[in-house]
Amino acid sequence: MDDTATEILEATYRALSRHGYADLTIEDIAAEADRSTASIHYYFDDKETLFIEFLEYLSDRYTDRLASIDDDDTDGARQRLLALLAVVLDDDAEATGREFRTAMLEVIAQAPYNEAIRDRMVTFDEVLFERVHAIVSTGVETGEFDDAVDPDLAAEFLVSATTGAFTRQVTIDEPPQQSMETVTGYVDARLLPDESENL
Amino acid sequence: MDDTATEILEATYRALSRHGYADLTIEDIAAEADRSTASIHYYFDDKETLFIEFLEYLSDRYTDRLASIDDDDTDGARQRLLALLAVVLDDDAEATGREFRTAMLEVIAQAPYNEAIRDRMVTFDEVLFERVHAIVSTGVETGEFDDAVDPDLAAEFLVSATTGAFTRQVTIDEPPQQSMETVTGYVDARLLPDESENL
Repeated sequence: MDDTATEILEATYRALSRHGYADLTIEDIAAEADRSTASIHYYFDDKETLFIEFLEYLSDRYTDRLASIDDDDTDGARQRLLALLAVVLDDDAEATGREFRTAMLEVIAQAPYNEAIRDRMVTFDEVLFERVHAIVSTGVETGEFDDAVDPDLAAEFLVSATTGAFTRQVTIDEPPQQSMETVTGYVDARLLPDESENL
Repeated sequence: MDDTATEILEATYRALSRHGYADLTIEDIAAEADRSTASIHYYFDDKETLFIEFLEYLSDRYTDRLASIDDDDTDGARQRLLALLAVVLDDDAEATGREFRTAMLEVIAQAPYNEAIRDRMVTFDEVLFERVHAIVSTGVETGEFDDAVDPDLAAEFLVSATTGAFTRQVTIDEPPQQSMETVTGYVDARLLPDESENL
C-alpha cells in the first residue's frame, strides 16, 4: 500500500473518532485527509471498500503492537500481560482513545449484520486470546505464575473480562484506570503464586 | 401501566429482536402487536418515548428476575451465582434470545450518543453488580466461598467478564454454553475454597 493510501487510512481513524461510525462519510474522511473526495475515490471505490481496508489496517497495527509486547522478554510475565491488556483498555498512545473506542463499539455492534466486520472481529479476538495465552503459558512454565493456573481458562476469562471492560468504558463511562485495576486485581490475586499474595 | 401499553412493550421486544434497532419503526411494532400505528401513538407520542418506556420495562423485568434468584436461598451461593449470570448469558426463557442480544448490543453502542439509553445501561450494570456482590458476600460469610475472596474485586471482575461474554456472543458468535463454561470455571477455580478444587 502506498503512502497516500496509508495517509487516507490514518485520516479515516481520526474521522471515525470524531464523527462515529453511523454518520461517517467520504467527505469527512476527505476533510480529515485534506484531500478531495475524488482523490479518495481514486484509491478506494466506495465507503464500504475503504472501511474494510481500514479494519484490515487497524488489525495489522493491533497485531504488531500486541506482538511487540509479547516479544519483549526483558520484562516479567505479569508486566507483559498488563502491558498487553493496556493496549485494549488504556491506550495512552492515542489522544483520541475514548472517541475511538466509542466509534469501535458501534462498528462491533454491526458484526452480526456485516460479514466482513464480523471476520475482522473474530481476528481481533483470536489475536488477543493467542497473546494472552502465550504469556500466561510462559509465566506458568517459568514459575512466575502459579502452576495450578490453566492457561486456556485464564486466557478465555481475561479476554472476556477485557472485552467487557472495553464495553463498559464506552457504555457506562468506566475510567480506563478502573478497567486496568480490575484486570490487575485478577492477575495478582489469581495468577501469581500464593506466596506473592501475602507479600 | 395498563394492559394494552404492556402488550405494546411486549410487541416492541419481538419487533426489536426481529428487525434490530437501527431499522426499527413504529410500523414494525404495530404489526407485531396486531394494532394500528394510530393506536400505538395513542399510548406513546413517538418512537423515542416508546423506546425509553421499553428500556424501563426491560429494566424492571431484569431487576425482578435477578432479585428472584437472589432471594431463593434454598440453593447454595455457587448455584445462585451461576443462575444469575445465566439470565444475562444463556436466557433459555426467551426463544428470541440470540436476536434480542444482537439488537441490544446495537442499543448499548448508542449509549454515548443518547443520555436516556446511557442512564438505563448504568442501571443494568449496577443491578447486576449489586446482585453478584450480595451472593459472593453471603457465600464468603457462610464459608461456601473461600474467605480470601474480596467481594468487591470478584463482583467487578464477574460483571466485566459477563459483559464481555455477552459482547462476544453477538460479535464472534460465541455459544452461550461456552460463556457459561468460562464464568463457571472462574467461580469453581477462584471462589470455592481450595479443598473443593481438589475433589
